[in-house]
Amino acid sequence: MKDKQKLKLRLQCPLPKLDFDLITMGHGSGGILTNKLLDSGVFDVLKNDYLDQRHDGAILNMDGAVAFTTDSFVISPIRFPGGDIGELAVNGTVNDLAMCGAIPKYLSLSFIIEEGLTMKEFWEILISIKYACDKANVIVVTGDTKVVEKGSGDKIFINTTGLGQIHENANISLSRIKFGDKIIISGELAAHGITIMSLREGLEFESEIFSDTQNLNFCVQKLLDRFGEKIHLLKDPTRGGLGTILNEVARDSNKGVKINQLDLPIHGDVNSACELLGLDPLFVANEGLFLAIVEGKIGEEVLKLLHETEEGKHAAIIGEVSDEHPKKVLLQSAIGGTRVVNMLVGDQLPRIC
Amino acid sequence: MKDKQKLKLRLQCPLPKLDFDLITMGHGSGGILTNKLLDSGVFDVLKNDYLDQRHDGAILNMDGAVAFTTDSFVISPIRFPGGDIGELAVNGTVNDLAMCGAIPKYLSLSFIIEEGLTMKEFWEILISIKYACDKANVIVVTGDTKVVEKGSGDKIFINTTGLGQIHENANISLSRIKFGDKIIISGELAAHGITIMSLREGLEFESEIFSDTQNLNFCVQKLLDRFGEKIHLLKDPTRGGLGTILNEVARDSNKGVKINQLDLPIHGDVNSACELLGLDPLFVANEGLFLAIVEGKIGEEVLKLLHETEEGKHAAIIGEVSDEHPKKVLLQSAIGGTRVVNMLVGDQLPRIC
Repeated sequence: MKDKQKLKLRLQCPLPKLDFDLITMGHGSGGILTNKLLDSGVFDVLKNDYLDQRHDGAILNMDGAVAFTTDSFVISPIRFPGGDIGELAVNGTVNDLAMCGAIPKYLSLSFIIEEGLTMKEFWEILISIKYACDKANVIVVTGDTKVVEKGSGDKIFINTTGLGQIHENANISLSRIKFGDKIIISGELAAHGITIMSLREGLEFESEIFSDTQNLNFCVQKLLDRFGEKIHLLKDPTRGGLGTILNEVARDSNKGVKINQLDLPIHGDVNSACELLGLDPLFVANEGLFLAIVEGKIGEEVLKLLHETEEGKHAAIIGEVSDEHPKKVLLQSAIGGTRVVNMLVGDQLPRIC
Repeated sequence: MKDKQKLKLRLQCPLPKLDFDLITMGHGSGGILTNKLLDSGVFDVLKNDYLDQRHDGAILNMDGAVAFTTDSFVISPIRFPGGDIGELAVNGTVNDLAMCGAIPKYLSLSFIIEEGLTMKEFWEILISIKYACDKANVIVVTGDTKVVEKGSGDKIFINTTGLGQIHENANISLSRIKFGDKIIISGELAAHGITIMSLREGLEFESEIFSDTQNLNFCVQKLLDRFGEKIHLLKDPTRGGLGTILNEVARDSNKGVKINQLDLPIHGDVNSACELLGLDPLFVANEGLFLAIVEGKIGEEVLKLLHETEEGKHAAIIGEVSDEHPKKVLLQSAIGGTRVVNMLVGDQLPRIC
C-alpha cells in the first residue's frame, strides 16, 4: 500500500533531467549549483505557498499554545525494509509533536549531504519526505542544504524541526501521572531496531521484518478528542526502547512503574530475532509506537479505541503506576519473579534513527 | 570584550568533573550515557523553564505572525578568530529571523557529534552557545544529540531552528521592492570568509582578521521601530556573499540592481587578503552583515541611524534598484566601466558556515 502510493508519487514527480548525477561540494555553495539543486526538484516536490516565498524563513500564523520539537536523523543504512531516512525524519518529528499533545502543522527540513550522494538517492529521499508529509498532513515551510566532503559525513543526515498547535483538550505532563494510572503501549515492540540490526548484519529471517515507522498523530488526536485530560502522558519509545523511556518516566515523576512481561505485545518473528541476536526487546528502538499513561479507570476504554485504529490494533495495557519503589521500573517476568529493569548504559545498536 | 564575557561564563560554568574525556557512541544511545552527557552540563548551562520540562518538545505561547527558520552549521575548522561553530549557529539563525522582520525568541538545538570529540571542545561550544543566546536575548527550548562513528562526521555539526515574533511594523517582502529603492549594506564585506580561508591555508596577515559573526536583531529592530514598512527587504549575505544575494534579489523581484564599487565598504586588511588570495570580496561569505533595501527617500536617514549603532557603524549606501536590465546586477567599477555581476557557479570556499 505504502509502496503503491510512493510509486504514484514517483511517477508524478520523476527525477528531472539534470547535467549532474552526483551531488558535489558546489551544490552546497549557495551559488548557481545550489539554486539548480533546489529549483530542479526540492521546491517542486515539496511545493507550497510558504516555500514559494524563497525568503530566509517562513512566516506563519500561530495562536495560543504551540509545540516545538527537533530531531536530527543519522540512521545507517539510509534505506531499510519499511522506510528510509526521509520518511523517518518526517514521522519522527510528527510523532514528537503528537507526544506533546499537539496537532502537527509545519516542518523545517535541513540536509547535510556527503559529497558523492547520487541525485537518484537524494530524489528517492525527497519522494519519501513528500509521501510522509502528505500522510501526516504537514508541510515543509523552510529549509537548508549543506554539503560536506567525502569522508566528513555519511551519505545524508536530516534535521526536521516541527511546529504544532496544542490540542484544545490536551494536558500532557509528567506532573499529572498518579498512582493507579494504566500504562498502555500502542503496538508491538522492537520491529524497527531488529529490522536495522538484521540489515546491517546481513541476517535473513523466514518472514520479512519491517520497520514500524509511521505517523501517530491521527491516532493520538482520536485519544485526545475523546479522553482529553484523562490522558496524562504520551511518550514514544524510540532510541533506548521502552525500558529506557519507562525509567525516565519513573525517575522524573518520582513514581514507581510496574509492568508485566506477559502483557508486552511483540511479533513472533521479532521475538525470535531478538532471542537469536541476544537483544532485550525492552531496549530495542521503535519508530511507530507510543506509550500512553492514562487515568486508571479509562484504561480499557482507551484500549478499545486504539484497537479500532490501524496504528493501535496491537495495543495492550502493560502495567500501571505504583506507589511502591519510586523511581524504579519493576517487571513481573513470565515465570513469575519480579526484577528491576535498569536503564541501558551504552547502546545496544547505534545510529538507529 | 567578547572574550571577557565568555571567560566570565566559563568561570560560572566550569567543565564538570566527569568519568569520561571523550564523547563516544554510547553518548548517542538515548540511555544512561546520553542522560549523563545532558545532565552533566547541557541542561545546566542552557537552563530555563522549557528545558527543565524534559519532554519531547517545548510548549510555547505564540500569537499572530511567527517567523520560522532553520540552518545546519558544518563549518571547518570549528574554532576561528572571532568565534566558533556554537556562536555561529546561534547568530546565524537569530539573523535569519531578523531578516524576516521578526524579534527572535526561541531556538531548538541539535548536535551531530563525531565520536572522539573531547568534552572540553564540546563544553567550549556550549559556553559559546550560551554567550550568543544571552547576547541576542533568545533561549534554547528543545534539543537533540546524536553521535556518529569516527569518520562518518567531522567533529560536530549543529542545527539551530528558530522562532520569532514578527515586528508589528514589519512588512518585508521581495514584492515590495520598487525602482529607486536604496540598497544599503550594514558593514564591511568579506571578513568571515577571509578569516576561515586564512586559517585553513595557514596564512598570517600583519593585523589579525576576525570573523564578523554577531547578532543583528537589535540593530534591525531599531530600523523597524523607526522606519517600519519603508524597509522593503532585509537579507544577510552569508554563503555566496553579497554578489549572490543581489543576484537572487534581481532574479526573484524581476528588477535591475545597480551598485557602485567605490561605495562598497571593505576593511583594508581584508581587501589586501582578497587580492592576495585572488578572491572577489563580492562572493566571500559574511556572517554579521545585512543588506537593507529601503524606500529611496529614507536612504540617508537609515544610514544615519545605522551609523549610531555598533553593528552598523561602517554601513554604506551601495546602489539602488533600477528599471534597466531587469534580473541583472550591474557594477559600476572603480575605473568607471560597468560590468554584469553574475552569480557564483560553484563555491569559492566550501564549509564556511
